Amino acid sequence: LEVNDLSGLQRFVYDQPAGEMARAISRLTDEERSQLINILPAECGAYLVEELSVEQASDLLAEVSPAKAAEMVDPLPSDAQTDLISRLDDDEAEAILRELDPDDAYEVRRLASYEPDTAGGLMAAEYLAFFQTMSVREVVDDLRTNASEYQEYDVQYVYIIGKSGELRGVVRLRDLVLTPGDERIDTIMIRNPTFVRDQDDLSTLEQFFDAQFFQAAPVIDEHERLVGVVRRAAVEEAIGEASSKAMLRIGGIIAGEETRSMPAWSRALRRLAFLAPNIVLNLVAASVVAFYEPTIKRVTALAIFLPILSDMSGCSGNQAVAVSMRELALGLVKPNEVLRTLWKEVMVGLLNGMILGTALGLVAYAMRGEQFAWIGLVVGAALAANTVISVAIGGSVPLLLKRIKMDPAMASGPILTTITDLCGFFFALYLATLFLPPLPPD
Amino acid sequence: LEVNDLSGLQRFVYDQPAGEMARAISRLTDEERSQLINILPAECGAYLVEELSVEQASDLLAEVSPAKAAEMVDPLPSDAQTDLISRLDDDEAEAILRELDPDDAYEVRRLASYEPDTAGGLMAAEYLAFFQTMSVREVVDDLRTNASEYQEYDVQYVYIIGKSGELRGVVRLRDLVLTPGDERIDTIMIRNPTFVRDQDDLSTLEQFFDAQFFQAAPVIDEHERLVGVVRRAAVEEAIGEASSKAMLRIGGIIAGEETRSMPAWSRALRRLAFLAPNIVLNLVAASVVAFYEPTIKRVTALAIFLPILSDMSGCSGNQAVAVSMRELALGLVKPNEVLRTLWKEVMVGLLNGMILGTALGLVAYAMRGEQFAWIGLVVGAALAANTVISVAIGGSVPLLLKRIKMDPAMASGPILTTITDLCGFFFALYLATLFLPPLPPD
Repeated sequence: LEVNDLSGLQRFVYDQPAGEMARAISRLTDEERSQLINILPAECGAYLVEELSVEQASDLLAEVSPAKAAEMVDPLPSDAQTDLISRLDDDEAEAILRELDPDDAYEVRRLASYEPDTAGGLMAAEYLAFFQTMSVREVVDDLRTNASEYQEYDVQYVYIIGKSGELRGVVRLRDLVLTPGDERIDTIMIRNPTFVRDQDDLSTLEQFFDAQFFQAAPVIDEHERLVGVVRRAAVEEAIGEASSKAMLRIGGIIAGEETRSMPAWSRALRRLAFLAPNIVLNLVAASVVAFYEPTIKRVTALAIFLPILSDMSGCSGNQAVAVSMRELALGLVKPNEVLRTLWKEVMVGLLNGMILGTALGLVAYAMRGEQFAWIGLVVGAALAANTVISVAIGGSVPLLLKRIKMDPAMASGPILTTITDLCGFFFALYLATLFLPPLPPD
Repeated sequence: LEVNDLSGLQRFVYDQPAGEMARAISRLTDEERSQLINILPAECGAYLVEELSVEQASDLLAEVSPAKAAEMVDPLPSDAQTDLISRLDDDEAEAILRELDPDDAYEVRRLASYEPDTAGGLMAAEYLAFFQTMSVREVVDDLRTNASEYQEYDVQYVYIIGKSGELRGVVRLRDLVLTPGDERIDTIMIRNPTFVRDQDDLSTLEQFFDAQFFQAAPVIDEHERLVGVVRRAAVEEAIGEASSKAMLRIGGIIAGEETRSMPAWSRALRRLAFLAPNIVLNLVAASVVAFYEPTIKRVTALAIFLPILSDMSGCSGNQAVAVSMRELALGLVKPNEVLRTLWKEVMVGLLNGMILGTALGLVAYAMRGEQFAWIGLVVGAALAANTVISVAIGGSVPLLLKRIKMDPAMASGPILTTITDLCGFFFALYLATLFLPPLPPD
C-alpha cells in the first residue's frame, strides 16, 4: 500500500473483496491506518465503513475529523449509524452528531437511548408508515413520488398506523403490487400484525424470528406506538456476535476481541486473565495429590494414571455439556428439568464408567502384573465413579446457568474441570491408600 | 397426551408454541409418535412438519403412508420438500415422490440431484422469471393474474431472463411498485446482477451473503441459465446446522445428533466412539510418565505437577485455536499464513510461558523448600517451554486444517492434547532426571 498514488489507492479500495480489505487494514499500523483514511475522499471512506466490521469501521471513524466522519456515515441506515457512533467516546460521538443532518442526528440519539441488545437498540428508524384512512392508490402514489428517498430504505413491508401512531396493520409490498388501487389501505392490510416491544431482549427476538418467516418486524413502545423496525439481519448479526464471543470464552479468551495485529504483550495479558486463575484452580486440585504423596511414593504407578483420570473425566463432562447445550438450543429440554437430565446422564455415566473403568483397569493390570492387581481395580473404580460425577455435573450445570440467565457455555469452563479433577484424584488416591499393605518393618 | 380426543388433540397441536411441540414430541416413544401422526389429519400434520426441525419432521414422515406424507409436504416450498424427502430411505422417498404432484416431484428430483451443502442443494425452485422483452405493465399484470399462486412464493425479486433462460437482470419488487408501466422491463432491471453458481459450496455462499445485503440470490448453471433461487435464510440455516455440529464435535459428540430421549445404551455407544480412542491416546502420553517412573519414585512431587502441566498447556493451546478460528471467520488471516501465525503465537507463548512458569516454579519452591529448589526450576521450565509449543500448534493447526478443507474446530481435539501432554511430561521428567543427584550408595 503506497500512499503517493491517490487514484490508484482508491481503485484498490473499490476492487478488493470485503474480506481482503479487512485483512489489509488489520495489518496496518495505527499511524498508517490514520494516514490512509485521512487521505481517502469521504465517499471512498463511506464505502469502506460499509464493508468493514463494526469494530474496524468505528476505529476508522475515530481517526478522521468529525465533519468527514459524518459524511462517511451519512449513507448508512440509522441503525448502522447508531451502532458505529455509540462505539466511540462520548466527545467524539457528540462532535459527529453535531455535523450530521439534524433529522439523522435526532434518530441516532433516539436509538442510542435504548440498551444495545434490545429491539430498540437494534431497530432502524427508516420505515414506511401510512394512516389507515388512505387508499391503496394514495399509498402507491406516495411511494412513486418519494421513490428516490425511499430507495435508501430496506423496504419489505408498509406499516399502517392509527391517528396517534399506534400500529394497526402491515401491508406486504407484493400485495400493493397485486391489488387494484381504489380500496382503502386497511382493507388489504394484515390485521393484528405480529410485533416486538422496544424493551424485548435478544433471546426474545431470536425466538420471534425463529418462529416467523418475516424479514423484519415492527417495534412498538409501551403506548403501542410504532417506533421503528427491526430487521431479521440485524438480530442475526447480534446473535452471531454474541455466539462468537461465547465460542471465544469457551476457548478461554475472555476479553473476546483479540486479533494478532495487537501487540504481543497486550495479547499475553488478555490470555493471562484466564490462565492465571486457572493455575490457582489447578493447584487446588493438585493439593489432593500432595496430601496423598506418601501413597504415591509407595505406588508410583498412580502418577501415570492421574493425568488420564483428569483428561477422561473432563471429556465425559464436556460431552454432557455439549448435549445439554444442543437440547437447550433446540428447546428439547427446559432449564427446570434438572432432575430428568441428571437421571438420563447418570444412566449413560454408569454404562460408560463401567466400560472405561474396566478398560483402564485391565491396562493397569497388564502393566503391573498380578502382584499389583489391586492398582487396576483402584484406577478402574476411580474412573467409573468419576465418569458418573462428570456427566451429572456437565449435563445439569448448563441448565442451572440458563436458569440464572448466564451463558450455558460457561459450563465447560475450568471450575468444573477443577471439581472433577478433585473428585477423580481423591477417589484414586483414597482407594489406593485403603488397599496399601501395611509398611514392612524396616 | 391422550389420543381419544381427536379434536382436543388437534387444538393442542395448533396452540403449542413450536418449541413446546418439539419438546413434547421428543418425549414420546416411537410407538406413541407413530400413533399420534397417523391419527392426526394430514393438514394438521403439514402444520407440524413446518414447525418442527428437519430431523423431527422427517421422522414423522417415515411413520405415515406415502400418500399422507405427500399431502403433508405439499404446502412446503421445493427446497424444504427436498430437504425432508432426501433424508428418508430411497424407497420411502420414491414412494412419496410418486404421490406428489408431478411438477413438484420433478423439481424435488432436480434439486435432490445436487450435493446437499451447495447452492444447488439449498436453492428453491419457486421464483419469478420474465423475458426481458416484456413491459413493466405486462409483468405487473401477470403478477396480479397469478397472485394466488405466487402468494406461496417467498418473492422479493423478479428475475429477467434472455431467450434461452440465461440470467440478464434483477428487478426489485419495490421498483415494480415505484415505476410507471409502459417501459420495457429491462429498462428498470439491475444489469449484471450478482449471482451464485449451482456448484458453489457453503463457505462461498456464506461469503457472498456476508458481502451483500440481498435476501436471496439467483443460481445459474454452467450455461449461465437461471436454475433456482437460494434464500439467505436457507444458507444461514445450513451454516447454523454445520456450526452446531462443530460445537458438538468440539464437545466430543461425533455422531452429532444425540438427544436424551434416545435409549441410554445407544447414547453411551455414541460417546464411547470418542472416548475409547481418547483413552488410547491418553495411554500414549502416559507412556512417557511410565518410562520415567524411577524418577518419580525418587521425586514424588512431580506427580503433583504433571496434571497441572497437562491442563495449563491444553488451555493455552485452546486459546490459540479460538483466536485462529475467529481470525479465519472474520477473514483477518489467510489459511496460507502459517508462518506469520506461528511467529505471532510464539511471541505470546514466550511471554505467558515465562510468567506462568515462574509462578508455578515459585509455588513448587514454596512447597518443597530450599533443598528441592531445583524441582521448581524443572516444572517452571517445562511449563514455559510447553506453553510455547501449545500456542504454536494451537494457532497454526486450524489454518492447516482449513487449507485441506477440514473443519478448523477439530484443532481443539484430543490428538493435539496428546501431543502437548507428551511434550510437557517429557520436558518435566527429562529435566528432573538430569537434575537428580546420583543415588546414594546403599
